[in-house]
Amino acid sequence: MKILVLGLGLIGASIAKALKKNTNHYVLGWNRTKSVTEKALADGAIDETGKLDELLSQADITFINFYPDAIVPFVIENRDKFKKGSIVTDSCGIKSKICRTLEKENFDFSYIGAHPMAGREVSGYDASLATLFDNASFICTPTNAKKSETDTLVELAKEMGFKRTVVTTPEHHDEMIAFTSQIAHVLACSYVLSPLAPYHPGFSAGSYRDVSRVARINGEMWSELFISNKEPLIKEIDDLVLNLERFKEAIKEEDGKGLIELMSKANKIKEEIG
Amino acid sequence: MKILVLGLGLIGASIAKALKKNTNHYVLGWNRTKSVTEKALADGAIDETGKLDELLSQADITFINFYPDAIVPFVIENRDKFKKGSIVTDSCGIKSKICRTLEKENFDFSYIGAHPMAGREVSGYDASLATLFDNASFICTPTNAKKSETDTLVELAKEMGFKRTVVTTPEHHDEMIAFTSQIAHVLACSYVLSPLAPYHPGFSAGSYRDVSRVARINGEMWSELFISNKEPLIKEIDDLVLNLERFKEAIKEEDGKGLIELMSKANKIKEEIG
Repeated sequence: MKILVLGLGLIGASIAKALKKNTNHYVLGWNRTKSVTEKALADGAIDETGKLDELLSQADITFINFYPDAIVPFVIENRDKFKKGSIVTDSCGIKSKICRTLEKENFDFSYIGAHPMAGREVSGYDASLATLFDNASFICTPTNAKKSETDTLVELAKEMGFKRTVVTTPEHHDEMIAFTSQIAHVLACSYVLSPLAPYHPGFSAGSYRDVSRVARINGEMWSELFISNKEPLIKEIDDLVLNLERFKEAIKEEDGKGLIELMSKANKIKEEIG
Repeated sequence: MKILVLGLGLIGASIAKALKKNTNHYVLGWNRTKSVTEKALADGAIDETGKLDELLSQADITFINFYPDAIVPFVIENRDKFKKGSIVTDSCGIKSKICRTLEKENFDFSYIGAHPMAGREVSGYDASLATLFDNASFICTPTNAKKSETDTLVELAKEMGFKRTVVTTPEHHDEMIAFTSQIAHVLACSYVLSPLAPYHPGFSAGSYRDVSRVARINGEMWSELFISNKEPLIKEIDDLVLNLERFKEAIKEEDGKGLIELMSKANKIKEEIG
């Protein structure tokens, strides 16, 4: 197949590199900043580039790796340029808003939202890795796609090296991601906003390091993700605050038994599920 | 010097192993459960064991690695058994409650509270490592000790492989540790107590893994630490909840600019300080 990767930042370029490393598909690539496309070509991360229209018309599968709010307008605007019968997908961290909007359209191609579950606290082409997805999960959220098309995308993800694939609804994806990813970023940021954070060197170890890691964040992109997933994320913030208040209350009352109970529950989840 | 390590769990046995690996001091060891002491002796983690009274009377430096609430009673009870002129220290994660109580006593030895800043999400002798402190900070909080005694302890920490040593007040230690360690554990636990946590596999990646890691916790020990450091920890919980509410409000109002501002501040701290 000819596979087009649009946007060659951390995720897009890692997709291109994983395709080149682990599959025999022909990889077309395009990036708004031309120098990045040229670098990807020189590195062998993509086989070919060209004019956007010509690339869109050739690709059997197109991966769109743009900021969340740019995806729907791009697909609508270019609706007549994608190859007829092809699969168009994206790598964005929210799915309902995108997939439920696009499923209403009558396209000549099939739109299947996706979310390759990997990231790094650094971004851009230079941070991309052919191995980024090796232990990762590939989630896709087909709504009105045919089963055979979903199967094609899932098979490709397996070929690319993803460890696990999940097919679910956009809503279930967004609810789970609000917990596994978005609230983790919100809490890491909230944590390092403590007035004491700048003075941590000499007083910190692995707990600070790990809990604060994802506070190294691209605010422009994540603000779009957070706002696009408002209800599930607010629910997670509320649940988290509720649990923090439970700890606070038990500490205030010097309720050792209550604290042990809370921690035993938490510990049990980590021991049993990870 | 003859150095006695009391309590051969994760921290105590790692202290013993680091002493054996990196220094030429003679290491005495003792653990309440005798089979653990025997294992440490067989492993070469300690040079010698014996009756507690005899060990206490010989040691130039004694490291006490007990649960927080057990330290003060142990020192008071054995006050006449420690070697005259020796240094007695501990490895417990809170300092004010211990050091401010013990400084009121008139001992024949010098008590210097300490906190080797390293840990693992597993505990017990079998989890101990000679290298646990290699990149860690050794904090000590002398109150009425002589400078020469503090220097002896600090020098020993350097010999043992600690990367950094910090000498400060018990109160400053406790305030900083409430932020760098205790609240990190509280929030990791609060996070995995979300009703969605058991369903994370397939939907999670590095963010979930890192933010939740320290929810693997020994509740018995940490409840003592939390209650012993009530005020600073409650202040950190309040600050964290305040920041979470700021995120919530901005998400609710779809205030992209406000969200970007919050995340830029967090990102700046991570970029500049780590």
